[in-house]
Amino acid sequence: MSDIATTGSENAHEDGHLDVVAVGNALVDVLARTTDAEISRLGLIKGSMALIDLAQSKTVYGTMGATVEESGGSAANTTAGLAALGGRAGYIGKVADDQLGAVFLHDISAMGVEMGRITPVAPSDEPGAERATGHCLILVSEDGERTMATHLGVAETLGPDDLDEDLLARGEVVYLEGYLWDQAPAQAALRRAIEVAHGADALVALTLSDPFCVTRHRREFLDLLHGDVDILFANEEEVTLLFDAPSFDGAVAAIEETGLLGALTRGSAGSVVVTASGPVAVPAEPVEHVVDTTGAGDLYAAGFLFGLTQGYDPERCARLGGLCASEVISHFGARPQADLKKLVSAAGLD
Amino acid sequence: MSDIATTGSENAHEDGHLDVVAVGNALVDVLARTTDAEISRLGLIKGSMALIDLAQSKTVYGTMGATVEESGGSAANTTAGLAALGGRAGYIGKVADDQLGAVFLHDISAMGVEMGRITPVAPSDEPGAERATGHCLILVSEDGERTMATHLGVAETLGPDDLDEDLLARGEVVYLEGYLWDQAPAQAALRRAIEVAHGADALVALTLSDPFCVTRHRREFLDLLHGDVDILFANEEEVTLLFDAPSFDGAVAAIEETGLLGALTRGSAGSVVVTASGPVAVPAEPVEHVVDTTGAGDLYAAGFLFGLTQGYDPERCARLGGLCASEVISHFGARPQADLKKLVSAAGLD
Repeated sequence: MSDIATTGSENAHEDGHLDVVAVGNALVDVLARTTDAEISRLGLIKGSMALIDLAQSKTVYGTMGATVEESGGSAANTTAGLAALGGRAGYIGKVADDQLGAVFLHDISAMGVEMGRITPVAPSDEPGAERATGHCLILVSEDGERTMATHLGVAETLGPDDLDEDLLARGEVVYLEGYLWDQAPAQAALRRAIEVAHGADALVALTLSDPFCVTRHRREFLDLLHGDVDILFANEEEVTLLFDAPSFDGAVAAIEETGLLGALTRGSAGSVVVTASGPVAVPAEPVEHVVDTTGAGDLYAAGFLFGLTQGYDPERCARLGGLCASEVISHFGARPQADLKKLVSAAGLD
Repeated sequence: MSDIATTGSENAHEDGHLDVVAVGNALVDVLARTTDAEISRLGLIKGSMALIDLAQSKTVYGTMGATVEESGGSAANTTAGLAALGGRAGYIGKVADDQLGAVFLHDISAMGVEMGRITPVAPSDEPGAERATGHCLILVSEDGERTMATHLGVAETLGPDDLDEDLLARGEVVYLEGYLWDQAPAQAALRRAIEVAHGADALVALTLSDPFCVTRHRREFLDLLHGDVDILFANEEEVTLLFDAPSFDGAVAAIEETGLLGALTRGSAGSVVVTASGPVAVPAEPVEHVVDTTGAGDLYAAGFLFGLTQGYDPERCARLGGLCASEVISHFGARPQADLKKLVSAAGLD
């Protein structure tokens, strides 16, 4: 700890070091409750994320009940959680110069996350190229499971030129959202981010984001595990699909062979951390009532990476991840509402 | 009940009858947690609503932590609650043709509320006259109390020409937001709304909205009680200020003298309904943990008016009000999240 007074964020550090710098799709979430029947009717697959165009977005939005809007974006949620825990986080993502873009920028800096140098893009309303801040329509079922339909908006245009390389190079961990693999310019940005990270001796973490995202990019994701990525975040379904394994245990064995650090979530069954010394299973934090699972994986990653950058052992990292996930699924929305530091302290994990 | 199939909202009625038509400031709420110290530092008074200009709004917003955005507006919340209960509601308010205006319009119609004929106003960003959809910055203290700072935006321009008189004339109750008294054009709109309501044999309900609002317009509000208003909604502090009474009991006696129907809320002490046969006290619905009191009064009015338009007795109306208020204070935000019909049924109030 430094005795030099900090200015700005309480998480700021005078040497510019950041625990995690994340790159992701900057989105505003639009949440509403729904039924499983409605999800089927809309052609969405429960529990997954679909990319939709503007016309589809208007259709889905039109069927949604009263909504709640909140800053989202998978990797952005992770940095918000990390900052809430007291970690130092940076974020790179692209928004438009519109009301929801302003909300996104306010919220991320209000959490104490350092936003990469960006120029919000002037929104366009040309027919067919209507570009605003991206949004994620989130339909929350009665059992708390969320189904997402994302219209990327200007996030779709994120490319290598949008990377704030100075910010990236300050991260101990550079955290990449698998969702970005869906767009060619973002793929190039991620490849460049990996170069910058490794040039700065940072660890590279990748989250697989979504089972369908894994199906779309399985080969590239597997290639990244050989030399590009150091830490893999995935849920049970994603990691099993990635390795085309007959079971979760098979996927765990496959990760062990790669030598990567794997943080694998299994919903209410907790998580498994795979390290050089073998897998460690950690039970989930009990939750009285699951309200909305949006952000569960993102907040798991926040807790895990906070622990990792504090030098904690893998089991403690996994418990921190589970604790943060339990907070975010106990209310509507993907950003923490409770004081995460207090929760960590109450759980004896600080 | 009609056996003619309805189109559109499940609450629609083929004869065009509406239980309640409300007029209010159409606002999007921007909520964040805060501390009492921060509220004082900002010069706000805990538990009250302050009107702020755009520069002040930017200052307050800049100090706020991560936010949640949700459609709000006191009377709009009431119509949303009424619709959630199965009532037929209409709403008149003014938004800009911007992203938050679109959110407001989506949400109110998603609740099944019939929106008055309006043309969203083209937003202006001329310095000094910057006009967008109005917003209410809501700072939620640790004890759940909310403190509000409202920038009216285009809602400030609501005047008699914005009244959809056909919609108004279809209401059994026309519900008016006291907050509107702060703007001269809106005062004129309210006076016209009262004329239209009485011309259509509707009851006129007024909510006093806020203690400072009462202080600002005490004389006019008292004048309205003589012939203009039939039902008065107020909390303990507001009604006591209105009648300049030495105590709540004094205010109850003063309402009795007017002969109006009074629905007076007292927070955790429940509510008192004042009728021609005297006052009836009803205890509050127990709430395990008060998360955020935003919308408590609005949802009380929703439950009360739903009961009233169903022909229920005053005590049952007050219990319905208390039940709806208890739902909205148990989570973040001013719109109901649980299924109000189920709650009513579980409480044996249907």
